[in-house]
Amino acid sequence: MKLAIEVPAVSSRLSHVHIGSGLLPQIPGMVAEDWREGRVFWVVDKTVWLHWGRALLDWGWPNPADGNVFLFEAAESRKTLRTVEDMCRRLAGAGADRGSALVAVGGGVTGDVAGFVASVYMRGIPHYQVPTTLLAQVDSSIGGKTGVDLPEGKNLVGAFHQPRIIWMDLEVLGTLPREEFRQGMAEVIKTAMIGDAALWEYLETHQAAVGRCERDALQRIVSACSSLKKKVVEADERESGRRRVLNLGHTVGHALERVSGYQMRHGDAVAAGMVAAARLSVRMGYLPPEDLDRLIRLCAAWDLPVKVSPAFPVRDLLSALEIDKKRIGGRLHFILPVRIGEVLDHDAVDSGAIEAVLGEMQS
Amino acid sequence: MKLAIEVPAVSSRLSHVHIGSGLLPQIPGMVAEDWREGRVFWVVDKTVWLHWGRALLDWGWPNPADGNVFLFEAAESRKTLRTVEDMCRRLAGAGADRGSALVAVGGGVTGDVAGFVASVYMRGIPHYQVPTTLLAQVDSSIGGKTGVDLPEGKNLVGAFHQPRIIWMDLEVLGTLPREEFRQGMAEVIKTAMIGDAALWEYLETHQAAVGRCERDALQRIVSACSSLKKKVVEADERESGRRRVLNLGHTVGHALERVSGYQMRHGDAVAAGMVAAARLSVRMGYLPPEDLDRLIRLCAAWDLPVKVSPAFPVRDLLSALEIDKKRIGGRLHFILPVRIGEVLDHDAVDSGAIEAVLGEMQS
Repeated sequence: MKLAIEVPAVSSRLSHVHIGSGLLPQIPGMVAEDWREGRVFWVVDKTVWLHWGRALLDWGWPNPADGNVFLFEAAESRKTLRTVEDMCRRLAGAGADRGSALVAVGGGVTGDVAGFVASVYMRGIPHYQVPTTLLAQVDSSIGGKTGVDLPEGKNLVGAFHQPRIIWMDLEVLGTLPREEFRQGMAEVIKTAMIGDAALWEYLETHQAAVGRCERDALQRIVSACSSLKKKVVEADERESGRRRVLNLGHTVGHALERVSGYQMRHGDAVAAGMVAAARLSVRMGYLPPEDLDRLIRLCAAWDLPVKVSPAFPVRDLLSALEIDKKRIGGRLHFILPVRIGEVLDHDAVDSGAIEAVLGEMQS
Repeated sequence: MKLAIEVPAVSSRLSHVHIGSGLLPQIPGMVAEDWREGRVFWVVDKTVWLHWGRALLDWGWPNPADGNVFLFEAAESRKTLRTVEDMCRRLAGAGADRGSALVAVGGGVTGDVAGFVASVYMRGIPHYQVPTTLLAQVDSSIGGKTGVDLPEGKNLVGAFHQPRIIWMDLEVLGTLPREEFRQGMAEVIKTAMIGDAALWEYLETHQAAVGRCERDALQRIVSACSSLKKKVVEADERESGRRRVLNLGHTVGHALERVSGYQMRHGDAVAAGMVAAARLSVRMGYLPPEDLDRLIRLCAAWDLPVKVSPAFPVRDLLSALEIDKKRIGGRLHFILPVRIGEVLDHDAVDSGAIEAVLGEMQS
C-alpha cells in the first residue's frame, strides 16, 4: 500500500526589528506585552550583566537569583552541543514548558546558541533577540540562523528559527570594547559593498562620528544594514541563492579563520576576504581598480587587515578553500564586487587566479 | 526605526509511506532514484544488521566498511545529545554536505535520533525512515517527531522534520523478538480505540493470524495504523490540538514509566494507561462498561498489563502526573475513549477520580 501524507504549509513568519537608543529599560515590558502564553526565560551574556546588571535591575529586568535568568559566559569555544544541553537542562529544571519563551541578550555567540536552544527545546519555543554588539546588530541577529560548532567546523549543527522581535539598543554599543566595534565594522563595510552605495559614502565621510559612537551615526549604519539584510532574508531564508551575497569576503575569510586555528577574528578575516574578492574581481575585469582602492582605504581606516600574513601559507589557504567547496556540494561560490554597492555570485573562479591574488596580498 | 521582516511561508511537505513485503532489497535503488542531489548516509541499528546484514549486502546495500553506513547500538539510554553530536561528527568527518541525505534504519530510538540529526546537521538535510519494529511502523516513524531525552525527561529536545519517504517492510517483523512485537501491539490497540472500530474487530477476530505474523494480517494492521496517523498529522502536525488524541493511554503511561525509573516498557505503560483512561471514562459516564471489558480482554490477550503494580504507590503516580501537567502549561489533558473507535480530549478530569481509578487498578 502507498500513502502520501501532506503536512500543511507553515505560514509566513514575521520578525519585528526595533532600532533605537535607550531601549533596554523597556524590554521586560515589551516582552510581557508580546508573550502572554507563559513564562519567559532569559539568557544573558555575563559581560553584558557586568556592565549593565545594576541598571537592568533598576529597570525591572528579572534577577538572576530568581531562576529565570541564566548568565552565559559567551565565547566561541562554548558554542557547542554541550552548552545547548546545559541550557536545555536548566530550562527543564526551572519548569520551562511549551508555552515558555526565551530572550537572548548578548553578542553573536549568545544569540546563536540561545536561538538554537529555543529552536529545539520541546521541539521549539518562541524567542527574542537583544543583540548587544555591533556585529550582532548589523548581521547575526537578523535572519534566524542559529547553531553551534563541531570540532570539524563552525556552525555545522543548527536550525533556522526566526525571532519574534529583535531589539537593537544603540546605547549598549557605547560600552562595547573598541576591538569589538572594529570587528563589527567589517560587516558594515561588507553590507555597503553588497548593496548600499549611499551607506558606503556615509562611511567614507563620517568616520569620526561613527568612531565616537554618535547616536545619529549608529542609527544610520545599523538601520541601513538591517534594511538590506531584511531584503535578502525575505528573498531567500535558507540560503539557496540570493542569501549567498551576504558571504562576500567569507570564502577566503573562512579559510583564513581555519588556517589560523580560529585565532584570527571574524571581522578581520572578512575584511581580508573582501579585499581578496575585490582583487579577483579586478583581475577578471568586473571591478574598476579605483573601487578596490576605496575598499582598501576604508578597511585600513578601521585598522582592518587588507593583506594576508605570511604566517598563513597560500597552499594551506587553498586546501582550506577545498574543504569549504566540498561542504557546499562541490562548487565554490565567490561573491565578487562589481562596483561599490553591487556584487555578483560567481561559481567558476579559476584556482590559479585565487592563488595569484593570495600571493599578491602577502607581498 | 522599526522594520518588519516577513519570511516567506514554507510550502506543504509530502511524506510518502510505502508498506509491503520484501521492500528491503529495493531500498537502495529507491533512495538513489529519489535523491539525486548528493551523497546518501545510512544509520542502521546494529541488531538489524546482525539479522539482515548479509542479505542487505547481497541486495546492494552499502557496506559499513565503506564509511557511508554508521551502525548504531540503539537503546533508550543512547537517545542523548551526546549521540547526536557523535553522529554529526561522523557525518562531517565523512564529508556529508548540504546536498547529502540520511536514511534511518531501525526502531523508534534509531528513527528519533537519526531524524533529529538530519534536522540539525547543516541546519537540516533530507531524511528517509525504514522502521523495522512494529512500534516504529505503526507509530513513531510517521509524523516527523524527532528528538532525544534529557535526564529531566524524555523527548525534551527535538524538532519536527518530515521524512521524504517511509518504507515499512513487513517481512522484517518476522525476525522481531516476541517481546518487541507485543510492545508494538499496545500502539495498534490504541490506534483502533482512537478511530478505527473495524480494525478493533479485526484484532478481536484475527489474533492468531497477527500473532503468527501472517503477511495479510500485518498488512492490514500496519496500513490501518498508518492511515489513521496520516489523518491526524495532516490535521495538526505540531500537536496543538487534534494530534493530542494519539496520547490515549500516555498520560498515566508516562507517569508509570517515570515512577518505574523507565524500567517499565512503553507498550506496557500505554496499555495500563489506556485501561486507566477507559476506567475514568466509565466513571464519568462517557464509555459503556462493556467497551472497557473489551479493552481489558484485548490487552490481556497480548499479555499487556491491565493493572498497576502495587510497587508503584498511587501517591507517586499522582506526583508524576503533576510534572506532566506543568510541562504542558498547567493543564492535564486526558484522552478518554467514548466508545470503540472514538475518543474525546478532556482537560478537567477530577484528581479524586484519577486517584480512585489507580487504587482500583492495584486491587
